[in-house]
Amino acid sequence: MDTRYDIAIVGSGPAGLSAAINAKIRNKNIIVFGSSELSGKLIKAPKIDNYLGLPGITGIQLKDRFQQHVANMGINITYERINTIYAMGQYFGVAVNEKMYEASAVILATGIEYTKALKGEEEFLGRGVGYCATCDAPLYRGKVVTIIGYNKEAEAEANYVNELSKKTYYIPMYKESLNLSENIEVVRDKVVEISGGNKVEKVILKSKEIVTDGVFVLKDSIAPDKLVPGLIMENGHIKVDMDMKTNIEGCFAAGDCVGRPYQYMKAAGQGQVAALNAVFYIDKN
Amino acid sequence: MDTRYDIAIVGSGPAGLSAAINAKIRNKNIIVFGSSELSGKLIKAPKIDNYLGLPGITGIQLKDRFQQHVANMGINITYERINTIYAMGQYFGVAVNEKMYEASAVILATGIEYTKALKGEEEFLGRGVGYCATCDAPLYRGKVVTIIGYNKEAEAEANYVNELSKKTYYIPMYKESLNLSENIEVVRDKVVEISGGNKVEKVILKSKEIVTDGVFVLKDSIAPDKLVPGLIMENGHIKVDMDMKTNIEGCFAAGDCVGRPYQYMKAAGQGQVAALNAVFYIDKN
Ligand SMILES: Cc1cc2nc3c(=O)[nH]c(=O)nc-3n(C[C@H](O)[C@H](O)[C@H](O)COP(=O)(O)OP(=O)(O)OC[C@H]3O[C@@H](n4cnc5c(N)ncnc54)[C@H](O)[C@@H]3O)c2cc1C
Ligand SMILES: Cc1cc2nc3c(=O)[nH]c(=O)nc-3n(C[C@H](O)[C@H](O)[C@H](O)COP(=O)(O)OP(=O)(O)OC[C@H]3O[C@@H](n4cnc5c(N)ncnc54)[C@H](O)[C@@H]3O)c2cc1C
Repeated sequence: MDTRYDIAIVGSGPAGLSAAINAKIRNKNIIVFGSSELSGKLIKAPKIDNYLGLPGITGIQLKDRFQQHVANMGINITYERINTIYAMGQYFGVAVNEKMYEASAVILATGIEYTKALKGEEEFLGRGVGYCATCDAPLYRGKVVTIIGYNKEAEAEANYVNELSKKTYYIPMYKESLNLSENIEVVRDKVVEISGGNKVEKVILKSKEIVTDGVFVLKDSIAPDKLVPGLIMENGHIKVDMDMKTNIEGCFAAGDCVGRPYQYMKAAGQGQVAALNAVFYIDKN
Repeated sequence: MDTRYDIAIVGSGPAGLSAAINAKIRNKNIIVFGSSELSGKLIKAPKIDNYLGLPGITGIQLKDRFQQHVANMGINITYERINTIYAMGQYFGVAVNEKMYEASAVILATGIEYTKALKGEEEFLGRGVGYCATCDAPLYRGKVVTIIGYNKEAEAEANYVNELSKKTYYIPMYKESLNLSENIEVVRDKVVEISGGNKVEKVILKSKEIVTDGVFVLKDSIAPDKLVPGLIMENGHIKVDMDMKTNIEGCFAAGDCVGRPYQYMKAAGQGQVAALNAVFYIDKN
C-alpha cells in the first residue's frame, strides 16, 4: 500500500457519512469503510419522524438521500469489513484480513449490536466461540467450523474460513439468497443453543444438531475494544469526551458506538464533531 | 398563567427545533420560544454542504424545511424573547418582561453571539451599559437611554424602555424598516465608541455624538449565565456533560451555546439528546 490516508472512517451509517462529508469539505484524503446498503439499521426503519428537515421519511428514502449526498461530493465507500485497527503511534494500521491500510487518524462509527446473545454464546466465548472468523481461521485448519451469520458480509468470511477448514456449516440469520462457496453446507434453521463441555462441541438447532469444533457468530459490529486493542470502554460504549476523542490519540468515535440515545441526528452530529476534531488533529501534527 | 409546561425550549434554531420534535414525539407538553425567521444565522447561510441528506441547500431552503417539519407536527413557535429563567427547585420560571411561564424542565438552545463587542462596551458593562433593556429599564426612569439594536426583536424592548425614559435613541445595526413608538429618535449611523468617565456619558458615532445616561446593546442572544442566574460556564460556553445536562437540575442546553464546532448537524444532534434526557428527567420525577 502506497497511500497513507489522512482519515480512515469505519462505518457508513449516519455517523460515518457525516464525518466523511465534513472531512472531505476540509480537503482531507479519506477512506470510508462500510456496506453497499450503508447501514442495516437505516434501511430497516419504516418511518422516521425525527430527522429535522425530512419529516416522515422512510429509512430507504433517507439512505438514498445519504447516498446521493456522498456521491455528489465524490466520496466512495469501500465495501470491506475491518478486523483490527492497530495504533502505531504516528499512524494507524487498519486491517482487512491480510490487507493493511494506513491512516493518520481514525474515526470509529461502527454502530452497536442490538441483537441479544445466543444461549451459550457468551459462556463459550474464547473456548470455541469467536467473533472474527478471518482472524481466528488458522486455529481451525482441518477442523469443522460453523458460522452463524447475521448479514451478507459474513458470507465472505465463511468463504475464507472454508479454504482452511475440513468442513464449514453456514447458518444464515437472514432471508436473502446466499453467495457461498459450493462445498459450504447451508443450514436454514433456528439456533437453540451453543453447547459443549470444556469447549464447544455442538450447535443445537430446532430440528437437528451440528457437531463442530468452532462457532463464529458474525454480527453487524465487532466489540470496539476487540476492533481497536487498548480502546477504553464505559458501560458497553466507547469512552469519548465532548470532542469525540477516545483514549487513543488520533482515534475518534461517533454515533451509537459511543452511547445512547441511539438516533440518526445524534449520530450525524457526533460524526461531524469527530471529523472536525480529526482534521484539527492532523493539521496540528 | 395556568399551564405548567413540561419543557420550555428557548431558541428556534436547529438545536431548539430538533429538541422540540423529539420532545413532541415523546408526548410532552412543550413551549418553544424563538423568532419568525427561526434563526438569524440559518437564513444568512448562502449554501450548506454539510447537512447530511440535503446537499447544497441554501439557508432559506433549510429554514423552510425546518418550518414545514415543525408545522407538520403541530408545533408552534412563540415569538417572545426570554429575559430571565429562574430555577425554583421543582420548576422553572421563564420570564418575558412582566409575563412568566412555568416549565418542569428547560432546554437552552439560544445560539451564540458572533458579533465582536463595540469599543467601550465591555469596559462600561454594568456602568451604564446593559444587555437586557426590559430588566434594567426601571433604573432609567426619567433619563436618556440609547439602544443599539442588532435585530428587530430589539424594537419591542426599545418601545418598552421608552415608556419610562425621558428620551430614547434607537441605533439599528440592520437595514430593515422599523416598528418603533413615534417619539423614539432613530439614528442611522456607525457606532465608533461608547465612552464616559466613571459611567457611560455618550455614544460616539461617525457623524455625531449622543449624550446618554445608559446604553443597551441588544444582540441576538444574551449571555447564558445572565439569562439563567447560577448557570456554570466554561470558556464562554454553557458547561454540559454528554447528556447535555447543565449544572442546574432539569436545565439542559444544546447547540452553539454549549461549544464548538458551530454547525447545524451538531446543534440538531445535541438538541435531540437534550430533549430525550429532559423527557427522562420529567418521567423520573
Ligand atoms: C428498525 C429501526 C428503526 C429505527 N428508527 C429510528 C428513528 O425513527 N429515528 C432515529 O433517530 N433512529 C432510529 N433508529 C436508530 C438508528 O438506526 C441508529 O441510531 C443509527 O443508525 C446509528 O447510526 P451509526 O452511524 O452510529 O451506526 P449504524 O447506522 O449502525 O452504522 C454502522 C455502520 O458501520 C458498519 N461497520 C460496523 N463495523 C464495521 C467494521 N468492522 N468494518 C466496516 N464497517 C463496519 C456497519 O456495517 C454500518 O454500515 C432505528 C433503528 C432500527 C433498527
Ligand atoms: C453566514 C453563516 C453561514 C453558516 N454556514 C454554515 C454551514 O454551511 N454549515 C453549518 O453546519 N453551519 C453553518 N453556520 C453555523 C450555524 O448557523 C450555527 O451553528 C447554527 O445556527 C447553530 O444552531 P443553534 O440552534 O445552536 O443556534 P441558532 O441557529 O443561532 O439559533 C438560536 C435561536 O435562539 C433564539 N434566542 C436566543 N436567545 C433567545 C432568548 N433569550 N429568547 C428567545 N429566543 C432566543 C434566536 O433568536 C435563535 O432563534 C453558518 C453561520 C452563519 C452565520
